[in-house]
Amino acid sequence: MSRPFGPLPSPGARPFIVEVKRGAQVESRHPVIAAIVDADGGLVAGWGDVETAIFPRSSNKALQALPLIESGAADAFRLSQAEIAMACASHGGETRHTDTVALWLQRIGRKPDDLECGAHWPYHEETARQLARDRQSPSNLHNNCSGKHAGMVSVATHLGEDIRGYVKPDHPVQRRVTAAIEDVCKVKLAPEMFATDGCSMPTMALPLRALAHGFARFITGQGLAPQRAAAAKRIAAAVMAEPFFVAGTGRFCTAVMQAGKQKFIAKTGAEGVYTAASAELGLGIALKVLDGTARAAQTALGGLLEHLKLLDDEGREAIRPLVEQPLNNWRGLHVGDIGLAPPAF
Amino acid sequence: MSRPFGPLPSPGARPFIVEVKRGAQVESRHPVIAAIVDADGGLVAGWGDVETAIFPRSSNKALQALPLIESGAADAFRLSQAEIAMACASHGGETRHTDTVALWLQRIGRKPDDLECGAHWPYHEETARQLARDRQSPSNLHNNCSGKHAGMVSVATHLGEDIRGYVKPDHPVQRRVTAAIEDVCKVKLAPEMFATDGCSMPTMALPLRALAHGFARFITGQGLAPQRAAAAKRIAAAVMAEPFFVAGTGRFCTAVMQAGKQKFIAKTGAEGVYTAASAELGLGIALKVLDGTARAAQTALGGLLEHLKLLDDEGREAIRPLVEQPLNNWRGLHVGDIGLAPPAF
Repeated sequence: MSRPFGPLPSPGARPFIVEVKRGAQVESRHPVIAAIVDADGGLVAGWGDVETAIFPRSSNKALQALPLIESGAADAFRLSQAEIAMACASHGGETRHTDTVALWLQRIGRKPDDLECGAHWPYHEETARQLARDRQSPSNLHNNCSGKHAGMVSVATHLGEDIRGYVKPDHPVQRRVTAAIEDVCKVKLAPEMFATDGCSMPTMALPLRALAHGFARFITGQGLAPQRAAAAKRIAAAVMAEPFFVAGTGRFCTAVMQAGKQKFIAKTGAEGVYTAASAELGLGIALKVLDGTARAAQTALGGLLEHLKLLDDEGREAIRPLVEQPLNNWRGLHVGDIGLAPPAF
Repeated sequence: MSRPFGPLPSPGARPFIVEVKRGAQVESRHPVIAAIVDADGGLVAGWGDVETAIFPRSSNKALQALPLIESGAADAFRLSQAEIAMACASHGGETRHTDTVALWLQRIGRKPDDLECGAHWPYHEETARQLARDRQSPSNLHNNCSGKHAGMVSVATHLGEDIRGYVKPDHPVQRRVTAAIEDVCKVKLAPEMFATDGCSMPTMALPLRALAHGFARFITGQGLAPQRAAAAKRIAAAVMAEPFFVAGTGRFCTAVMQAGKQKFIAKTGAEGVYTAASAELGLGIALKVLDGTARAAQTALGGLLEHLKLLDDEGREAIRPLVEQPLNNWRGLHVGDIGLAPPAF
């Protein structure tokens, strides 16, 4: 039996394993490295080499949103909690998402074409099909990062900076983001750690442990300048209050935060990354599925949240189908499951 | 530098690695186990534990098609090479695919609803969107396995068997398939190795080495009964003559067989599996990406085909974009690559 919410193997030098079963046999295995760190940087628990440099990808959008608050743009443009949540989102491109970004841009005197994220079909399949049925094509608004981009454009607009090229590492908008990440995670990001994300913004590799440490500082405010701590608190409150706007229907980030009842934040990143943080416990979590597979990342996060007792019975049952991910085939037959491999592995 | 066509690490007890780079950093890693086996069962080269039991999934559709020829159904229904190729296909659901299966079923007096594969949206994205634009839903014909199912229904129809439940392990149609696989791969499939595939047919786990051995016997006919060897030869000739019908536009199985100029057969299976076989070399190949990721399977197969010198310069260049898989983001910027990790890893 795979046990999605069963005990994890003891922390140590080895990754833990998420396994995919078909019938009685293990079909595929995903090694996961993970770090649970307190605000002082103490490693509370780690699996695998927690000093491995990983690309956070979208998992650190909450950190990337700090300048949106700190610059005064969020106040100047009277951003709602839903809009701040969308600045931290990898959304499904559902109508509530695209409408929110469209109205936000309109309010600040910008248009969808100002976003430099590129267009892609909505992640939310039914929305994508409806778009095709309506003989339309996706726009920049449907890009899962359009809210983050609207946030960046808001900062440049508020500060009177040229918005063109706001995705480039040397644009003032990105320099502020990089400085915020370096400060919160207590790292110095060397040039060779910079790469380009799916939405054309920089993504910078940093040690898994530093990412978890950053989220412990972010959620507690401990060790941060007062203005930065206040901005972090406001962002965390927004994503916990409006989890639909962080991802969407059927998505794990939304479901797990709904199940968590504002006890923690959680965010996925491409290539098998998850971050989470709990103010109550004063802890940050970062995990990376070494092969980059998303299905294992959400099962792994479910296991870590259970390990930290951050889910009550109701919350655990609510997310169980997204953690166990029963594999049903094209006719709806149950043919397999995903779960944590037994600790002895 | 990742080197998609560079030298593989020496065969041995360790998997080789397909790595995904973003900028200058490795972002994700896929361990691959592989076996190259001759028709006598000799292990010519192996990486990782080649005795690992894996589910071949769709990678052994050519073996599953043997009873279609051996039963006399292919002759009785005058199946074309394209139709035989479709019996071995995981196709994209393009119009040429669905039309071929529809006409085949019509000719044998059956209808799409007789297929027990279930429906799913076509893998070929533009076809899926066009279907939505036309306000239609996918049918059984669009299921990537509809050709295999048409083959199974053909056998039952030809032999006067009840077609209902032809996907169940104890239906005569499946008993013949199981017996053929056991014979060709020289294995005895224990009950606990049976599971259910995405299209509801049985899939049976067997050692990677046995799967490669089976394909060496299949492609050479060596050691098989004459009628079985002739059936195998006819199936291999069909898939090499009609590679479009095995997969479709933009798909690796189609592209690699076109590039191979009828020197080998190759077929993907879900969860990171590939098989291939060359009559000229008398070898069968089987590989499994341990984490089940398709992107790594095609890069790994490219590396093994290069290792065996089965590609000429033109063929190598033709498939390079599907082996290196340059990662372009939503705006078309080149942000990373996939390739074999250096042998020293």
